[in-house]
Amino acid sequence: MSLQIDLNSDLGESFGPWQMGNDPDMLKVVTSANIACGGHASDPETMFETLRLAKENNVIVGAHPGYNDKEGFGRRVIPMHPVEIGRMVAAQIGSLMAVAALVGVKVAYVKPHGALGNLAARDKDVAAEIVKVVAQIDKQLSILAISGNELEHAARASNVPVYSEIFADRGYLSSGQLVPRGQNGAMIKDADEAADRLLAFMKSGMMPVIDGDPIKLNAHSICVHGDSPTAVSMAQTIRQKLTADGISIKPFLTS
Amino acid sequence: MSLQIDLNSDLGESFGPWQMGNDPDMLKVVTSANIACGGHASDPETMFETLRLAKENNVIVGAHPGYNDKEGFGRRVIPMHPVEIGRMVAAQIGSLMAVAALVGVKVAYVKPHGALGNLAARDKDVAAEIVKVVAQIDKQLSILAISGNELEHAARASNVPVYSEIFADRGYLSSGQLVPRGQNGAMIKDADEAADRLLAFMKSGMMPVIDGDPIKLNAHSICVHGDSPTAVSMAQTIRQKLTADGISIKPFLTS
Amino acid sequence: MSLQIDLNSDLGESFGPWQMGNDPDMLKVVTSANIACGGHASDPETMFETLRLAKENNVIVGAHPGYNDKEGFGRRVIPMHPVEIGRMVAAQIGSLMAVAALVGVKVAYVKPHGALGNLAARDKDVAAEIVKVVAQIDKQLSILAISGNELEHAARASNVPVYSEIFADRGYLSSGQLVPRGQNGAMIKDADEAADRLLAFMKSGMMPVIDGDPIKLNAHSICVHGDSPTAVSMAQTIRQKLTADGISIKPFLTS
Amino acid sequence: MSLQIDLNSDLGESFGPWQMGNDPDMLKVVTSANIACGGHASDPETMFETLRLAKENNVIVGAHPGYNDKEGFGRRVIPMHPVEIGRMVAAQIGSLMAVAALVGVKVAYVKPHGALGNLAARDKDVAAEIVKVVAQIDKQLSILAISGNELEHAARASNVPVYSEIFADRGYLSSGQLVPRGQNGAMIKDADEAADRLLAFMKSGMMPVIDGDPIKLNAHSICVHGDSPTAVSMAQTIRQKLTADGISIKPFLTS
Repeated sequence: MSLQIDLNSDLGESFGPWQMGNDPDMLKVVTSANIACGGHASDPETMFETLRLAKENNVIVGAHPGYNDKEGFGRRVIPMHPVEIGRMVAAQIGSLMAVAALVGVKVAYVKPHGALGNLAARDKDVAAEIVKVVAQIDKQLSILAISGNELEHAARASNVPVYSEIFADRGYLSSGQLVPRGQNGAMIKDADEAADRLLAFMKSGMMPVIDGDPIKLNAHSICVHGDSPTAVSMAQTIRQKLTADGISIKPFLTS
Repeated sequence: MSLQIDLNSDLGESFGPWQMGNDPDMLKVVTSANIACGGHASDPETMFETLRLAKENNVIVGAHPGYNDKEGFGRRVIPMHPVEIGRMVAAQIGSLMAVAALVGVKVAYVKPHGALGNLAARDKDVAAEIVKVVAQIDKQLSILAISGNELEHAARASNVPVYSEIFADRGYLSSGQLVPRGQNGAMIKDADEAADRLLAFMKSGMMPVIDGDPIKLNAHSICVHGDSPTAVSMAQTIRQKLTADGISIKPFLTS
Repeated sequence: MSLQIDLNSDLGESFGPWQMGNDPDMLKVVTSANIACGGHASDPETMFETLRLAKENNVIVGAHPGYNDKEGFGRRVIPMHPVEIGRMVAAQIGSLMAVAALVGVKVAYVKPHGALGNLAARDKDVAAEIVKVVAQIDKQLSILAISGNELEHAARASNVPVYSEIFADRGYLSSGQLVPRGQNGAMIKDADEAADRLLAFMKSGMMPVIDGDPIKLNAHSICVHGDSPTAVSMAQTIRQKLTADGISIKPFLTS
Repeated sequence: MSLQIDLNSDLGESFGPWQMGNDPDMLKVVTSANIACGGHASDPETMFETLRLAKENNVIVGAHPGYNDKEGFGRRVIPMHPVEIGRMVAAQIGSLMAVAALVGVKVAYVKPHGALGNLAARDKDVAAEIVKVVAQIDKQLSILAISGNELEHAARASNVPVYSEIFADRGYLSSGQLVPRGQNGAMIKDADEAADRLLAFMKSGMMPVIDGDPIKLNAHSICVHGDSPTAVSMAQTIRQKLTADGISIKPFLTS
């Protein structure tokens, strides 16, 4: 039996003259790209160029909608009713889908960004609204969510295809949640440590936690960060170590 | 033989707390609505509400993309390469299409707004790029253009369905162009005069001009303005006079 | 002994092509104008025109900074650290001061808008930060606040001149707070009722409340709203009734 | 007799989460900083941090206003009337001045950015309007301009103090204008070549041109670019070579 996993990353987060991360190199490592849609980041040129590079590298593309707040990079909760969130998310997904049509690729899934992603992970109503609009826009769109969160539950409840991700560089609690940023054990900064941890998880299905025994987690994809200076080399190390151990790196969806 | 014509108007041009025109009343008069897409005006809530009202009134909806310049309301030419314009237009059309999916209506055509519309009317490359992206996004989308302009030519050259509009309240030159705003004869302010002129045109196919003999014009639709204080009453007068004379007011497309 | 009071209103809240309220008429009624600074509303043209009209009508001008959120009109709390709020407020006040210099008027006071105003009313740290930056920008700037709130306390604690306002069309609780919007008694919609209530208050210093005996309130100014369809006529009625009763309507500051 | 010159650079051009250039290092090399004001780049946090670092390094600060167009980074001419430009520029200068007050530094001069700078260099009306508003805002503000351009003329005509700059990495024409980008000789990419050229200029007052004999140019300051990957090292090389040759690097204004 052979093991396989997807690598995903948040990309296309440049804006106008400003670059974020190193998309050309990341798109040689990952198999799925969560692409910003003009809300927390990006603009039509950035969307086009990111989609074009993704296509060139056979990377599956997903929409990565976020709060319409570039100054805060989508990391601040803007008070909105769930139906307002749904319409904002729809407008962003639609933008990316139309630009993707120019490139000749299809947006395959949706993964909310930053503060919106965190809210959708814990708020039933927001999660349900996002799932509803995703299905209304295109029945072939999937959702990418953290295993066990409200967004995953909402997708299952609505029969919208949903896939699970784990984080390459974040510590876990026994509840299945991430160790909050700022606490000890929140971030794994060493690429080899991160890779070895993922390797062990791939073989056992068990994830170490900082407050108890390892827990069982579901994962179709590993999220690697794209916006830190060491992002590319950590992603490369993870890919190399997993591949060297016979795990194939393949997208969780096909285009 | 019975005559028929469509009435179209630029609608959905509110933004956040700010209202533009009287969409609920205009949507009872027109048969096609050119709906702003978040570039020169609008936001996801405004798009949703306008699309919802259009559906309720059986009004066909088109996308009305413009320069991404709310402060200038899309009336200023922002220097951009034609391919940049194409991607900007695509992102806006995509936004409206996705929000339309939430409402359960389909965007049927595209009509560029303001300075972008004027540029597409005279610039072959911009016209060709807009037509190209419209076809790439959805082969069922039509174009609404002024008879004889570059956008119409580009659409015909690419076999994209294209329909012609004339303006209810604007004077014409013998070249087929509008009398530039600010010149004598540019604006027709009296509703009855505008209606009588359209009535005569409907029967003869000939449009009076300020600098010569009436000219032959093609028209599937009459554009009535939606953003002046007298907009609703002028549109109502035109609709009533045309209808009273046996001309049916029907959309140029079906949903 | 003669009584006097100021009338203030939130003005200059148009944006680009979109109008809010009727500033030319309101500026004939009020004696102080809280002018938006490009954050929740306005742009340099709107600031200039509002300041010009204020000068023409001898109306004292204040800065009305708000969250940098036009889509939400500054009515949503954007999560920010107090020092970030201070810098945002400073940038907005500075904009208005510089445009005021072109008109030849001086910004005399600061009153925060909407969600920012509500936060500054109840959050000591935000209130202190706003007072601090106001004093750092210009020692001659005053603060306009609701009597008894944190912003007033912070100003007194820092020896920044502070003036109190009451609301013409809002009901009060015995705590001195406004009846929350949406509750019975929150809004006073009848202009005569509002005027009579203010008249009684001017003579007694006591404000009726919906949950007990009238309370003593301090007031240098009455806030009249500028953005509802009946705003102008309510403001006119209040001004006329107060004036008819011998109360002079005068700014709380001099230019 | 000892020679001295200022080094200036466009700084503070980050926005929200996006970095532009390396301000901390550039602020150790230059003596004057042209700081973006929230139009083509920046936000209150970025302004504050850049001003704070400038103060820490004893760098004189100027306002660097540009078109309100972050997506285009102020490099596109937005069609505006000169008086509209003046009000936009005023609002931006005011923002920077107010944030500078929080830091405890004074904005000493104004240098327009990008497409606005180019327009002010060649358009008398725009130049005159910018000079007028600068003087209206604060009589102590100077202008920094290219020797011989319309902005310099307008400043002299209005008795607004004006200083001249030359470019470290750009070729000149015998007309005194820069070789347009994209043409041969437009850019000087080698740091040593740029430094040697400036050294020769400092001693002779004559600038080599690509189409004739060296021309006489006036210069109080040398503009070094801050936003390319090699910006810091080129600026350091220039500073070192000039200093080694006995030229002192000093601001053209004092704080």
